[in-house]
Amino acid sequence: MTDTTSNQMWGGRFAAGPDAIMEAINASIGFDKRMAAQDIAGSRAHAAMLAATGIVSDSDAEAMREGLLTVLSEIEGGSFEFSTALEDIHMNVEARLKAIIGEAAGRLHTGRSRNDQVATDFKLWVRDQLDATAKGLLALIDALLTQAEAGADWVMPGFTHLQTAQPVTWGHHMMAYVEMFGRDLSRVRDARARMNECPLGAAALAGTSFPIDREMTAKALGFDRPAANSLDAVSDRDFALEFLSTASLCAMHLSRMAEELVIWSSAQFRFVALSDRFSTGSSIMPQKKNPDAAELIRAKIGRIFGANVALMTVMKGLPLAYSKDMQEDKEQVFDAADNLMLALAAMEGMVRDMSAHRENLEAAAGSGFSTATDLADWLVRVLGMPFREAHHVTGSLVALAEGKGCDLPELNLEDMQAVHGDIDASVYDVLGVHNSVASRTSYGGTAPEQVRAQIARWKEALK
Amino acid sequence: MTDTTSNQMWGGRFAAGPDAIMEAINASIGFDKRMAAQDIAGSRAHAAMLAATGIVSDSDAEAMREGLLTVLSEIEGGSFEFSTALEDIHMNVEARLKAIIGEAAGRLHTGRSRNDQVATDFKLWVRDQLDATAKGLLALIDALLTQAEAGADWVMPGFTHLQTAQPVTWGHHMMAYVEMFGRDLSRVRDARARMNECPLGAAALAGTSFPIDREMTAKALGFDRPAANSLDAVSDRDFALEFLSTASLCAMHLSRMAEELVIWSSAQFRFVALSDRFSTGSSIMPQKKNPDAAELIRAKIGRIFGANVALMTVMKGLPLAYSKDMQEDKEQVFDAADNLMLALAAMEGMVRDMSAHRENLEAAAGSGFSTATDLADWLVRVLGMPFREAHHVTGSLVALAEGKGCDLPELNLEDMQAVHGDIDASVYDVLGVHNSVASRTSYGGTAPEQVRAQIARWKEALK
Amino acid sequence: MTDTTSNQMWGGRFAAGPDAIMEAINASIGFDKRMAAQDIAGSRAHAAMLAATGIVSDSDAEAMREGLLTVLSEIEGGSFEFSTALEDIHMNVEARLKAIIGEAAGRLHTGRSRNDQVATDFKLWVRDQLDATAKGLLALIDALLTQAEAGADWVMPGFTHLQTAQPVTWGHHMMAYVEMFGRDLSRVRDARARMNECPLGAAALAGTSFPIDREMTAKALGFDRPAANSLDAVSDRDFALEFLSTASLCAMHLSRMAEELVIWSSAQFRFVALSDRFSTGSSIMPQKKNPDAAELIRAKIGRIFGANVALMTVMKGLPLAYSKDMQEDKEQVFDAADNLMLALAAMEGMVRDMSAHRENLEAAAGSGFSTATDLADWLVRVLGMPFREAHHVTGSLVALAEGKGCDLPELNLEDMQAVHGDIDASVYDVLGVHNSVASRTSYGGTAPEQVRAQIARWKEALK
Amino acid sequence: MTDTTSNQMWGGRFAAGPDAIMEAINASIGFDKRMAAQDIAGSRAHAAMLAATGIVSDSDAEAMREGLLTVLSEIEGGSFEFSTALEDIHMNVEARLKAIIGEAAGRLHTGRSRNDQVATDFKLWVRDQLDATAKGLLALIDALLTQAEAGADWVMPGFTHLQTAQPVTWGHHMMAYVEMFGRDLSRVRDARARMNECPLGAAALAGTSFPIDREMTAKALGFDRPAANSLDAVSDRDFALEFLSTASLCAMHLSRMAEELVIWSSAQFRFVALSDRFSTGSSIMPQKKNPDAAELIRAKIGRIFGANVALMTVMKGLPLAYSKDMQEDKEQVFDAADNLMLALAAMEGMVRDMSAHRENLEAAAGSGFSTATDLADWLVRVLGMPFREAHHVTGSLVALAEGKGCDLPELNLEDMQAVHGDIDASVYDVLGVHNSVASRTSYGGTAPEQVRAQIARWKEALK
Repeated sequence: MTDTTSNQMWGGRFAAGPDAIMEAINASIGFDKRMAAQDIAGSRAHAAMLAATGIVSDSDAEAMREGLLTVLSEIEGGSFEFSTALEDIHMNVEARLKAIIGEAAGRLHTGRSRNDQVATDFKLWVRDQLDATAKGLLALIDALLTQAEAGADWVMPGFTHLQTAQPVTWGHHMMAYVEMFGRDLSRVRDARARMNECPLGAAALAGTSFPIDREMTAKALGFDRPAANSLDAVSDRDFALEFLSTASLCAMHLSRMAEELVIWSSAQFRFVALSDRFSTGSSIMPQKKNPDAAELIRAKIGRIFGANVALMTVMKGLPLAYSKDMQEDKEQVFDAADNLMLALAAMEGMVRDMSAHRENLEAAAGSGFSTATDLADWLVRVLGMPFREAHHVTGSLVALAEGKGCDLPELNLEDMQAVHGDIDASVYDVLGVHNSVASRTSYGGTAPEQVRAQIARWKEALK
Repeated sequence: MTDTTSNQMWGGRFAAGPDAIMEAINASIGFDKRMAAQDIAGSRAHAAMLAATGIVSDSDAEAMREGLLTVLSEIEGGSFEFSTALEDIHMNVEARLKAIIGEAAGRLHTGRSRNDQVATDFKLWVRDQLDATAKGLLALIDALLTQAEAGADWVMPGFTHLQTAQPVTWGHHMMAYVEMFGRDLSRVRDARARMNECPLGAAALAGTSFPIDREMTAKALGFDRPAANSLDAVSDRDFALEFLSTASLCAMHLSRMAEELVIWSSAQFRFVALSDRFSTGSSIMPQKKNPDAAELIRAKIGRIFGANVALMTVMKGLPLAYSKDMQEDKEQVFDAADNLMLALAAMEGMVRDMSAHRENLEAAAGSGFSTATDLADWLVRVLGMPFREAHHVTGSLVALAEGKGCDLPELNLEDMQAVHGDIDASVYDVLGVHNSVASRTSYGGTAPEQVRAQIARWKEALK
Repeated sequence: MTDTTSNQMWGGRFAAGPDAIMEAINASIGFDKRMAAQDIAGSRAHAAMLAATGIVSDSDAEAMREGLLTVLSEIEGGSFEFSTALEDIHMNVEARLKAIIGEAAGRLHTGRSRNDQVATDFKLWVRDQLDATAKGLLALIDALLTQAEAGADWVMPGFTHLQTAQPVTWGHHMMAYVEMFGRDLSRVRDARARMNECPLGAAALAGTSFPIDREMTAKALGFDRPAANSLDAVSDRDFALEFLSTASLCAMHLSRMAEELVIWSSAQFRFVALSDRFSTGSSIMPQKKNPDAAELIRAKIGRIFGANVALMTVMKGLPLAYSKDMQEDKEQVFDAADNLMLALAAMEGMVRDMSAHRENLEAAAGSGFSTATDLADWLVRVLGMPFREAHHVTGSLVALAEGKGCDLPELNLEDMQAVHGDIDASVYDVLGVHNSVASRTSYGGTAPEQVRAQIARWKEALK
Repeated sequence: MTDTTSNQMWGGRFAAGPDAIMEAINASIGFDKRMAAQDIAGSRAHAAMLAATGIVSDSDAEAMREGLLTVLSEIEGGSFEFSTALEDIHMNVEARLKAIIGEAAGRLHTGRSRNDQVATDFKLWVRDQLDATAKGLLALIDALLTQAEAGADWVMPGFTHLQTAQPVTWGHHMMAYVEMFGRDLSRVRDARARMNECPLGAAALAGTSFPIDREMTAKALGFDRPAANSLDAVSDRDFALEFLSTASLCAMHLSRMAEELVIWSSAQFRFVALSDRFSTGSSIMPQKKNPDAAELIRAKIGRIFGANVALMTVMKGLPLAYSKDMQEDKEQVFDAADNLMLALAAMEGMVRDMSAHRENLEAAAGSGFSTATDLADWLVRVLGMPFREAHHVTGSLVALAEGKGCDLPELNLEDMQAVHGDIDASVYDVLGVHNSVASRTSYGGTAPEQVRAQIARWKEALK
């Protein structure tokens, strides 16, 4: 049976010979039909401009614009029949337009070519994705702010090397991700501003001798200006690559958060409970709750950054202007965009749904003498001890507590003073996890007041 | 309009809320249905083993095996209705089997789990692709051998740095690619031998307490042996990664050959004519023939190696045994395999169809004093001159020829002897491109006799 | 002999056992000493702030600041002895400072930790590279503008698929690269603005209880503001990744230009002559000039994007806050930055030095009926012919010229009118490569006036 | 200060102008001196062959061979002065040889060129690394076998999704890694066999007219045969890429094991204790032990796979034969090889040193009703219950135990029979983690007897 399968691929599909192979490798309609709305928007803007500049008659332009709306409604309604023989979305639309409005359809291609048309369509599509990514990021940030606000003063362990280092607050940890996704948002906005130049009218590569008005089409399509060099306009795919690298960084952040959720959901950590909606259970093991969504989100960096590698590799060493290699751009971007949207939505949902196990977090925060640093800092700050001595004294106190099987705040003052006579009762103000986090009031620190200030700043900024 | 589009993605598709998002990110039936044949083959082998070991009755096993054939014919016939609610191919097949044969279907899952089942299915699928890749490589090598045989003694420039270095033969150049694709073939065979161990019976991860016979299922499915560690068996994706890295190297070779075909097809080189079947023309520029297929082949390394990066990134740092991240493995391999098959088929077709412009090749081979090295070698070999002196004398002779506006073989003996008195008429035996290539008879060299010997060796090896 | 070599690695270097292995994998001083200037600048700013806030005495702070200057001069003077036992640049500097100024050195670490210190140093280093990249891009753009200005009206072939498509101007082609490198410059500036937040004072991860003034240190080091979340501040490497992806895109542009220079330097194209300074010759083949620098520039995308992949892979799935994995960040960025600077400098030099073969460019521009498009456009524009008919008429005229062995402008008017009666003498205004490029006056088109307008715009923008 | 630094790079280093830039980008001696031993071995073999074939005199060859040994001892002794002006290792060695033995040195280059020389050197270097990798893998496998043997019957949780799924044995888990590293070893051996063809004598690209004996040099250098096509021999870098992809897969396995060690070392898991030699502590937090080495090993996949991406990108689309781009091959392979060796050695050391916390492992293995699967299997296997019913009964029993706050083996028989009357006392044979693992005796399963059988098989295989 398996033999048949491989034969199917090799012997079957390609048995029809070179023509079938060429069609299979060459045609793009299988994927570029996703740009139908963009293609029609571009053509409608172009038609309006052709009339405004007198290149075509008003009535021809009107026929084109109406006809294109008809084509769009056919596509959106599902009644449009795509033809592989017509290779791509541009020719499919054009052929249908001609069937609807007749010869006038032929004038639509005046002053443009397929090279600038595909660049325009693809830019519009990518721009939509940048906007959708921004929306997804804002929704996720909102979910994180909600978590941060609820738990601005819940204590949990702050890890380095996955070892407890110092207590932090739940709100502070959530806000670290707000900063990350905030930078992603900033990158998305920069990328959008940079790519917002219109290729339409670059024609095949040299510009055109028709008296077109590129400012007009650029404006109609929401671009800031026309692209300034026609060769570059048709051979540039920076906008796609910048989308992919921006998406990859965002996916990297998602992978870090997903990793934490997977670890935090383990029986050993039990820091959070994910909702049933984003995990799967076992019919016979009631405590097992597989964090499927978190794992899939963690994995998405693979295909998104893989797409970035793919397109960079394609573009490496391509001479100007257009080469057919560049047809490989769309599927990578489509797949990366779909998966980024999905990962953002799933993460937002998970963050909204998840509940922290506050007792477990707090218990873990206090284990391992996690406030030893606070004690050492107190010795330096209040008693003016040099660091080295403060570390020595702290070490002795920790050893004492360890010997007694208790934690630092449980040592009594006599015990402490036996180690160093200058210690007074005010030391207890920094011991214990709540005191510890409350004391870290430096800008950006983990103290609840600082966390709340950052939440407020973000809310203001996102208004 | 574009706003609507992004809204569709964000607001529309996900509007249904968390459940829709989870289904979208979690379900794999959209792609893993491509493993239907492998899934059914695996289940049929498992059923036969369950009967042979007495774990299920012969009649139950027979019902399963017959029922599975029915399911397969439904799938191949196109009448099978895949359900997203049933998530994956395994549950789709199982549910349908139960509808056909009733309760007995439930016993099929004895002694296995979805983890070893998916590993087995995917291995069978990848193994098929390795076999198909081998076929594709053999067909391409055959096409190259045909070209090499036809042009074993046609001369062309041998380039370094895209500068003419020394004359070589067309056959020699073709055979360089035979060596490359030959190594690819060797890698494919090694990968197949290494991955040919059967995961079935590893169960969820720990093996099973049912008295299954893993040798029997392994044998039935064409594996060399059962995988030796059940934890590894369900968490291993080396076979997929080795397929991808092997495919990537092959795609790299294809990209180099495609680059040469693009350059050779330019108006400036005009070394080869590609057939109309693998290029596209211009209705108004008769000499323009765009090497579309070559460019698309050149680009395929992007998505194939991008898939390799994607899966490596997914697997990085995953703890044992199975994590849901690994569900991202299939789409990458499917896409890479499809595109590799396509690229191999297209390259084979192009190589078979293309015709070399022998006169252009020969003229280019002789330009730029390309046989100066032969002259220097002759001075060393025949006159026993040290290299440094031989280079000095050669430089003087080239300068003389350049001054006269002629090539080296067109200098007469007096001219030559004026530069160095020991030169005699036998020097002409190595000048001129035909003499040059004929003289390079070292093993693996470009002399037609060497080229023919290598062709013969390859034909013998591939018998 | 070779056996010895591998033994050296395995048996020799590691023979000393675990301690030697741990030191080899753990110590970073071998590479992070490149951040010495940044480390000292950060510490001096921190010391000044500690005094201003009263955390340390003015005299202690002054001693630290002076002592650090001494350490810097020792490092820059080459007399500093780096110690591997002290692991990294921070401890090397601190130990030396203590030797110079005594106990006061120990107070320098108040209110900070190695985690925020390394983040600050590395950010300062990367920021310097962004500035250096901007300078390199400006220099390269300047060289391209000079070329563009000189050849604003030189004609050359415009290629698609490496096939002549339409004539363009040399200046237009150069300006396409100005657009590309201009986008790179814009990305560099965005990246710099985004990353310019100071981690200093984030301490280990939670902030500190010392009353530090993070605004002050941020300002002193040229940062726009302190980083707003201490957990994020020590676990963020976005700035390094954004440098790498920005550098990769720039390297991709360089690879495209380098590819063109390699092809243009071939004997078959002979479009440009590279200077001897950026190529290597053959002692015996005077026409051979290997474009070594162009090839090496073309290759640099490999290691620069490889570094991007490396660091993305490292960061994938890392839980917060600091993990030792992140120590792998520096070597990747150092290597990528060095190679980007080198590639930009080499490309700038090559562009300044190269000379175009104007006659070859012009001859190539006119071959292959490259102005057929102009003829068809004229038929549409002037005679009002529908596209399809215009293409048909053009095809007939090209066939006529091909039959006569001449180019389109060499057909006389009678010949033309025999194909279509309405053609008049004004058609010759668009035939011929100079007419063709002059006619393409749409915004961003290849007409010399458009090219000059873009040159002027860029010069104004870069003032 | 920071301004100075960037100026240094841009203004300083390159201030000397184009010549300094070209030297910086072009010279390879900075890194290729690592191939000195290989270069000299290759030259000595070549000299011997030149004498044996009568191309040079015996006395000349002897002088070369002796002189080369002198050069080697100078290099190994550290007294050799490398010159950047001489560009690469080949010319450095050759120039020194000439200084030692005079004119005869010039004959050494007969019948070869720098292209085949560098390919030979690099192949020898890579082959050494493959051998060293094999050694490193064998040492690591040995360490794992030792751990597996010691803990063949220690129970621990088997995870899927980082959730406890079923009990497994420590030995079984260790042996999963033996399988992975065993596949790496198999790949290393295949790669070595495939690459073991000698490029020497391919000369610049076309072979040579000197009557060289390529079989002889191939044999002398330990190659299986000479490479069969001279064009391919100088343009092939498959061996480097196959080393990199093999190394990357191995690094991926290392990253998975390192991730487990990091997680297992956390305060929450506490499954293992790493030795002090491979971790770093905190002076004031006695329980904190940062798994630095594990984290650094986890990160190494970044730079190793990054190197793979780098070289694949370089090779993409390179026309034959040699292009200068290929000079970028060595640094990537050197860095990847060094880091792979280091990571293997560090992992081997960590595995040998680490100690499992058996009680923690066993306690964790039994939590979460991890033997529910065993109970369900028992109901199927012994009572002949259909799966669905068995799952239902198991669910009821788990709910019962949960209600009583006990684990499954602690339910008494009456409780069990109340849920299903057919259950008898033999059910206790599969409950409890020890019973569970003991029952999984299928081939490759986790039962101690199976684990011991696999250990024995591996020991036999590695004898």
